[in-house]
Amino acid sequence: MTGEKGAAPSSPAIPVIDEGTLRRAVSPERAVSVMREAFEADGEGRTRVPPVINLDLPAVHGEFHVKTAYVEGLPYVAVKVASGFYDNPGRGLPSGSGLMALFDASTGFPAALLLDNGFLTDIRTAAAGAVAADLLARRRIDTVGVIGSGVQAREQVRCLAIVRSFARVMAWSPTRVNLDRYVADMAAAGFRVDAAPGAEDVCRSADVLITATPARGPIVEADWLREGVHVTALGSDSPGKQELSPGCLAKADLVVVDRLDQCAAFGELRHALDAGLVTRGDVHAELGEIAAGRKPGRTADRQITIADLTGVGFQDTAIASAVFGLLR
Amino acid sequence: MTGEKGAAPSSPAIPVIDEGTLRRAVSPERAVSVMREAFEADGEGRTRVPPVINLDLPAVHGEFHVKTAYVEGLPYVAVKVASGFYDNPGRGLPSGSGLMALFDASTGFPAALLLDNGFLTDIRTAAAGAVAADLLARRRIDTVGVIGSGVQAREQVRCLAIVRSFARVMAWSPTRVNLDRYVADMAAAGFRVDAAPGAEDVCRSADVLITATPARGPIVEADWLREGVHVTALGSDSPGKQELSPGCLAKADLVVVDRLDQCAAFGELRHALDAGLVTRGDVHAELGEIAAGRKPGRTADRQITIADLTGVGFQDTAIASAVFGLLR
Repeated sequence: MTGEKGAAPSSPAIPVIDEGTLRRAVSPERAVSVMREAFEADGEGRTRVPPVINLDLPAVHGEFHVKTAYVEGLPYVAVKVASGFYDNPGRGLPSGSGLMALFDASTGFPAALLLDNGFLTDIRTAAAGAVAADLLARRRIDTVGVIGSGVQAREQVRCLAIVRSFARVMAWSPTRVNLDRYVADMAAAGFRVDAAPGAEDVCRSADVLITATPARGPIVEADWLREGVHVTALGSDSPGKQELSPGCLAKADLVVVDRLDQCAAFGELRHALDAGLVTRGDVHAELGEIAAGRKPGRTADRQITIADLTGVGFQDTAIASAVFGLLR
Repeated sequence: MTGEKGAAPSSPAIPVIDEGTLRRAVSPERAVSVMREAFEADGEGRTRVPPVINLDLPAVHGEFHVKTAYVEGLPYVAVKVASGFYDNPGRGLPSGSGLMALFDASTGFPAALLLDNGFLTDIRTAAAGAVAADLLARRRIDTVGVIGSGVQAREQVRCLAIVRSFARVMAWSPTRVNLDRYVADMAAAGFRVDAAPGAEDVCRSADVLITATPARGPIVEADWLREGVHVTALGSDSPGKQELSPGCLAKADLVVVDRLDQCAAFGELRHALDAGLVTRGDVHAELGEIAAGRKPGRTADRQITIADLTGVGFQDTAIASAVFGLLR
């Protein structure tokens, strides 16, 4: 604190890696493999996940969320800062932003700054969906149902294709123009994809159903779910969000969560608990317990399975460690 | 999440500022002025301070702490990551490290990375001590007592000299070689400084007493405190740490805290509460309330005042915003 008078020790610079470089470094295949190992580590008790920081700035309609976690055996710890500023779009700016800072897990020293603008969250979320589907969906599936038309509606399908073969995608989104663009883009990416007239049509056709919307009320009704379907619900990642009617969880044979405390607080599970239709004891497993072989996944083709995914800090540490390792 | 196939949008780079540049940018005078305004903002209810993240890595004797806060009217929000890895010194490395990431408070976008290695925490901590002394110490003082010999033992005195004139410093530290180095360094910096034979001698002479040690048990006894003394206690910044015997707080006319919840959890106040010698209601004010003029500071020369400082996230946002503003 010597001000102008003092010596000026130089701190070692750390690599600052931009979104384009990160995107080029990691394939969906690699991301799925990294997430599988991360959930295994979690199921084996090799993660430490402290509560997140939520900083609200109501005066400017903004919010920051900070997540971190330690995964035993990984060389780095990521601290992720994600922001949502909801007046940005009116100024021609994206509402979301963020970065991950990486720290050496054996010395605590800063190791790298990943300016990913949310890309690493997108890829780890999609890869976690594929891990869930691989552990819970039937081996043979025909139709993938998608509700939503954004980044996750796309990347979940891309990652699912790594763990399952399927003939077609049937998609619905409340905004027609977004749905049309989704169908065109996914067709260009090599998928056979049809627009459905409504959410019910998607659900009644799906062997694997992916819900990837920011909905704040139920879209999917329990009696629309087919025998043997696997549902990956990932829209409900903060309080107030919901995609499945609580009856879906009551109807399911296996309800699996990424983190019981998080899902009970703000996942689909929260709404089913509030409705009194399920208890925490009705949750079959955390996904990591299945990945680690400590609990079984699907055991019969007729079972209905639901994966309630809210996104956990160890996923951030795992994907960031892996991507930076590839780039070093 | 397009992996190798996708486009590679580039994210805008952000400035990465090293410790030397940060040190050259900010003087103690500026830091004290910034902290005064920050505490005023806090006292006026213009800050938002969420709970901190503590991530312990017991397997490697390491820990990370993450703090953030919003200060209305400031252009940035800082997210500070501080680490302590206690096997580092055995490998010739410092135990502490850290950085601050700055985000635009109106868009949420990343704005800068300050690789300060803890320097900004040091300067804001010392400046907060000067703000506390300015609001609580007598106008005329003669002797500054210092217990400790580290960075804060030095910088608190340097910052105090901005708000008060004093004739001499009397210092004690449990490790003689550190104390001798402290006396030599402070003399070279222009202070008249004497080594005391013990903590009691320091306390019995001090008009302003600064305790800046990592002690985990009381060093200062209540009956050593002179009439009219002001004590700034800043060592107790996490659970288990303590420098003042609980009787000091009971004896004081004014106990002032930087943040009531933090001090009640892990400041000097915690130990006095545990001992049953004071209640939360005995706390006169948060420092910000005095800075903002909502509550009085010292009102008589004979009063004994104690400032219990644990360090609050708004101080980080304030110092980082100010320093980056100077450098832009």
